[in-house]
Amino acid sequence: MNIVILAAGMGKRMHSRLPKVLQPIAGRPMLDHVLETTRGFSEAPSVVVVGHCADEVKSRYDERDDLVFALQEPQLGTGHALMTAVPHLCAGDPHTLVCLGDVPLLSKKTIAAMREECGMNDLVLLTVKLDNPKGYGRIVRDEFGRVTSIVEEKDATAEEKLIREVNTGIMVLPTAKLEAWLSALTNTNAQGEYYLTDVIGLAAGEGSRIATVHPENVYEVEGVNSKRQLAQLERTWQRAQADALLDAGVTLIDPARIDIRGELLCSQDVEIDVNCVFEGRVVLESGVRIGANCIVKDAVIRAGTEVLPFCHIEGADIGAQSRVGPYSRLRPGATLAGRNHIGNFVEVKKSEIGSGSKVNHLTYIGDATVGERVNVGAGTITCNYDGVNKFRTVIGDDAFIGSGTELVAPVVIGNGATIGAGSTITRAAPEGKLTLARSRQTTIEGWHRPTKKA
Amino acid sequence: MNIVILAAGMGKRMHSRLPKVLQPIAGRPMLDHVLETTRGFSEAPSVVVVGHCADEVKSRYDERDDLVFALQEPQLGTGHALMTAVPHLCAGDPHTLVCLGDVPLLSKKTIAAMREECGMNDLVLLTVKLDNPKGYGRIVRDEFGRVTSIVEEKDATAEEKLIREVNTGIMVLPTAKLEAWLSALTNTNAQGEYYLTDVIGLAAGEGSRIATVHPENVYEVEGVNSKRQLAQLERTWQRAQADALLDAGVTLIDPARIDIRGELLCSQDVEIDVNCVFEGRVVLESGVRIGANCIVKDAVIRAGTEVLPFCHIEGADIGAQSRVGPYSRLRPGATLAGRNHIGNFVEVKKSEIGSGSKVNHLTYIGDATVGERVNVGAGTITCNYDGVNKFRTVIGDDAFIGSGTELVAPVVIGNGATIGAGSTITRAAPEGKLTLARSRQTTIEGWHRPTKKA
Amino acid sequence: MNIVILAAGMGKRMHSRLPKVLQPIAGRPMLDHVLETTRGFSEAPSVVVVGHCADEVKSRYDERDDLVFALQEPQLGTGHALMTAVPHLCAGDPHTLVCLGDVPLLSKKTIAAMREECGMNDLVLLTVKLDNPKGYGRIVRDEFGRVTSIVEEKDATAEEKLIREVNTGIMVLPTAKLEAWLSALTNTNAQGEYYLTDVIGLAAGEGSRIATVHPENVYEVEGVNSKRQLAQLERTWQRAQADALLDAGVTLIDPARIDIRGELLCSQDVEIDVNCVFEGRVVLESGVRIGANCIVKDAVIRAGTEVLPFCHIEGADIGAQSRVGPYSRLRPGATLAGRNHIGNFVEVKKSEIGSGSKVNHLTYIGDATVGERVNVGAGTITCNYDGVNKFRTVIGDDAFIGSGTELVAPVVIGNGATIGAGSTITRAAPEGKLTLARSRQTTIEGWHRPTKKA
Repeated sequence: MNIVILAAGMGKRMHSRLPKVLQPIAGRPMLDHVLETTRGFSEAPSVVVVGHCADEVKSRYDERDDLVFALQEPQLGTGHALMTAVPHLCAGDPHTLVCLGDVPLLSKKTIAAMREECGMNDLVLLTVKLDNPKGYGRIVRDEFGRVTSIVEEKDATAEEKLIREVNTGIMVLPTAKLEAWLSALTNTNAQGEYYLTDVIGLAAGEGSRIATVHPENVYEVEGVNSKRQLAQLERTWQRAQADALLDAGVTLIDPARIDIRGELLCSQDVEIDVNCVFEGRVVLESGVRIGANCIVKDAVIRAGTEVLPFCHIEGADIGAQSRVGPYSRLRPGATLAGRNHIGNFVEVKKSEIGSGSKVNHLTYIGDATVGERVNVGAGTITCNYDGVNKFRTVIGDDAFIGSGTELVAPVVIGNGATIGAGSTITRAAPEGKLTLARSRQTTIEGWHRPTKKA
Repeated sequence: MNIVILAAGMGKRMHSRLPKVLQPIAGRPMLDHVLETTRGFSEAPSVVVVGHCADEVKSRYDERDDLVFALQEPQLGTGHALMTAVPHLCAGDPHTLVCLGDVPLLSKKTIAAMREECGMNDLVLLTVKLDNPKGYGRIVRDEFGRVTSIVEEKDATAEEKLIREVNTGIMVLPTAKLEAWLSALTNTNAQGEYYLTDVIGLAAGEGSRIATVHPENVYEVEGVNSKRQLAQLERTWQRAQADALLDAGVTLIDPARIDIRGELLCSQDVEIDVNCVFEGRVVLESGVRIGANCIVKDAVIRAGTEVLPFCHIEGADIGAQSRVGPYSRLRPGATLAGRNHIGNFVEVKKSEIGSGSKVNHLTYIGDATVGERVNVGAGTITCNYDGVNKFRTVIGDDAFIGSGTELVAPVVIGNGATIGAGSTITRAAPEGKLTLARSRQTTIEGWHRPTKKA
Repeated sequence: MNIVILAAGMGKRMHSRLPKVLQPIAGRPMLDHVLETTRGFSEAPSVVVVGHCADEVKSRYDERDDLVFALQEPQLGTGHALMTAVPHLCAGDPHTLVCLGDVPLLSKKTIAAMREECGMNDLVLLTVKLDNPKGYGRIVRDEFGRVTSIVEEKDATAEEKLIREVNTGIMVLPTAKLEAWLSALTNTNAQGEYYLTDVIGLAAGEGSRIATVHPENVYEVEGVNSKRQLAQLERTWQRAQADALLDAGVTLIDPARIDIRGELLCSQDVEIDVNCVFEGRVVLESGVRIGANCIVKDAVIRAGTEVLPFCHIEGADIGAQSRVGPYSRLRPGATLAGRNHIGNFVEVKKSEIGSGSKVNHLTYIGDATVGERVNVGAGTITCNYDGVNKFRTVIGDDAFIGSGTELVAPVVIGNGATIGAGSTITRAAPEGKLTLARSRQTTIEGWHRPTKKA
């Protein structure tokens, strides 16, 4: 099956410098969604028809060798757009699927259903029944239920206007017929455009067999032309994802206040409190609980771990039976072995933290290897950066880092070492011993408190 | 009045290891809600019929001596469930209320209304009128309006299907008749179960007087069989609580974005901004303002205090006319006398803070007693933990703790003492004097900045 | 045009000590909104009719010399209220606009439309068509469509009850007729009040020309009598503002989760994530992205800057191409030149930060001037307060402040100076050199870890 994705539109009503098909839904450009959905349905490269801001669209997909771009310039309608794609089609694939870059939520299941109908039919139209079909092209059928044409609103008779089944613009066409049919289109209409829709009448007139398929969900065929529609479809999609999680047994405290921008994989008995955002690929293992107002991106959170409110987690792997938060920030490369406590106002970056270790308060751990059962006191800072280079801090098992300590990397704290509170440690601290760097405490006699200056 | 709570169901559609009646709504298991609502209506222990995961359910209520458990094994329907409870009933109580463990939001008011009807009637059914009664058992009445039976959807005539009044499964029955009636039930139905509902027909046939009572709110009789229904009922309940607060004069900036999991008591002129969560028992005195995105659990916040956004407060008592936040974390045992300022990135735990004292930035106060009018500088840490023991820090009235100070407990800072910035204090600091522990500042000649390493 | 604002009502159903017209919507008292909307339509001072808590209302507007207050005491209805205003009206202005202090969202556009009708008419009524007009006074017209009277619900015939056009209470009246008409009102009604509405019948009876104007949005004429209505109107207004942003091309991830309390000015391609709150006057320049859960008040955020989640920004000016957050708190007087990084758990107050400088972790910068390309290490604190005075810290261009440093103000760090980690700096640090204040690191032999105490 050939795949053509029409992505040349301007999206003037978006009021944006960004081309319409790059406007994001669920955190990714609409076109990304369509490319992802159609992936695997064609052995030949998909043809993306670009026009408005063509270079910007193309450059985003520079690295994909499974795409070819057809330039539609000027943009004279959907039929014209498809015509520009024809030279790039693989003639050996008898069917050509036409998708729309601004209809982002089509599902693989729906495409598969359309493909299935290809065997017995010449054309497959994706249509949908709407309670209020006003403004859409109606699917006209004969007395045997065979599609005969698509009638636009303005050309429809009173009877035709009652038809609730409408065209979505997504269809499978016979590759071999495309050139002839598209060449026969005219632009004698209000917009002066060549409409792909008009092909249906031609095909029916030639006696082509035309099947129709409905999507499981209406949102799959909803297009986006404005920021309002974008926001609306975003919420519809988020709600659909929330419902899918609920159906799989996830507890969501408020399905209207969860955002999933990517893939959220949940095992049994996961609970997610209000107002959380998930980005990229997030795995929540069995029994994980995510507190209110957390942001989690590209992370694995292992069984039984609890994330308290206000956490910001990105690129981290959090071991089982841990407790993270509130207000913990785990950055890329934070790897917690398990049974860890990461507390409030703590930042961890590019560091491995061993099993059972705790970092509870007001601390920065960066570029460090922390052993098992370590206690890192409040206000500890790994000084990993000298202005140009980054160095690592290594803390051995069972070490105890007193509060308010600076560990100036590169530095090694031995197993079982204790660092006295308030120390700046610049050299290795030996195993099992107390190391500190501390000034003598003195009291100044005769000192007076400052007074208010003018 | 005897009380029987049917809590044996499996809740397969929950896709959870947790038994259905332990699934939480408003932060507590559904069964907790039913036990709380029915508390006080019976002098005899309530009978909880358990079955699926019986041990897990029972162990949660181990300490309650006002409950007895009846084991329904296998689970052969609601009639069968009640039969297992009969031996535990107090024969001296003529009435027996049957509640459902997965119908969590029944109100005390509704139970009281049912009890009131007991005097003049043999049975009291809780029924509700639905716009769409499809699927529910209809309440059939004779020409005098007397209940004659409950007809299930599948057995209903076309006329009966028009009846909008439906059975909720919650009812009061005459204790003395239970054994006979339940023994007469048959399981010749699609599910092969003994339905409690069928008792109504028997009772009516014997000429029993049957009263009906409606709940004030439909959500009181809504059952939960899936995570979707759980989430839906959670939102319904949260909205009902929000409306009750509004009616009492609380200003809520968004009634759809407040979660109350327990009891929220508000005096006059309380204002709560968007996206706050209240857990356990929270008291907000007159004029209290809670900023956006706060989590407050088991706390008292006294008159005129303002809590700024992003605070996490648990087990704290915050005195009047204080200002807390943003990003303050008050943990259990944080007791603020009043007129305090607790600022950003500050954690307070098990500490009393005297009137007028301020802890404004990046500080950890744990296991401390802080006097009045104390100023705790930014980056102060009470080093309360030596790895095995916790010690207390005592700070006298009018003390001034310079920024970046470690107070190594046990330690006492005298009244009016000043601690120089950057000090690690390990011994008592005398009253009224400046104490510090500070290294000499030196500048290194001929030093060069590090260069980039490969 | 004279302007009269009726603001004497008690608002008993608000259950508040605050007078009704001072209850806030979108962060400001309802009366503020009406004063703002009517500003500019009159050269004479507006007359605010106060009654309940008159002094509290008046004292809020003490400084406005474009207002005069008329005291309605006791409060005997809207007609009586307007009567108290008459002596303050400017007889030279032939028209008098009557607005309501508890109908806060009237638009300038609607007032302008009413004013336009004044030329050809004696009276202009603001009316609205409701699907469910029950309870409202109906606009009765004769066969020529001319308004003849307003009929209250209880006095309406069955036919009149079908009228969907209702009175809003907002109108323009001929100043010269007011005294006569208002004097002719009677209080022979259920409430015993003098109704302004009754003036319409008098006017029509005298053959006055009466025009009607509809507001663009129904919410413009919605009044507030309870906290429920206040919350409802708040949400309606927030949604209207969100829709206006969407229509202008702003990307809102969830239009139901944004709060704008003041003025939010957005250039092209601004994106705002879920659950943000904007207060006062906020300017977001082109390409600005605001992450989830941010609070932004009275701030300018310049082109291309990204604000990550959980930031709290007030009174700040954030330069272009910067990255702020997560968990950054910028307080009044924080001025960032551009290309800055402000990171997690960082507070900046009354400080200028030069271009390209970074303050990434756990730091307090207060009363400081920071040069360009400065790197401020984690856990740095400007010790700006000695208990009574505040002092400034000056950090030169290209300085590198090591982590865990206290800068005791007043203090100057020279250009290109490096401060060693863990130092407390009390005197000037010379340009280009390494300055530190550090204790010798020692290891204690024979020391044993503490043991558990009873």
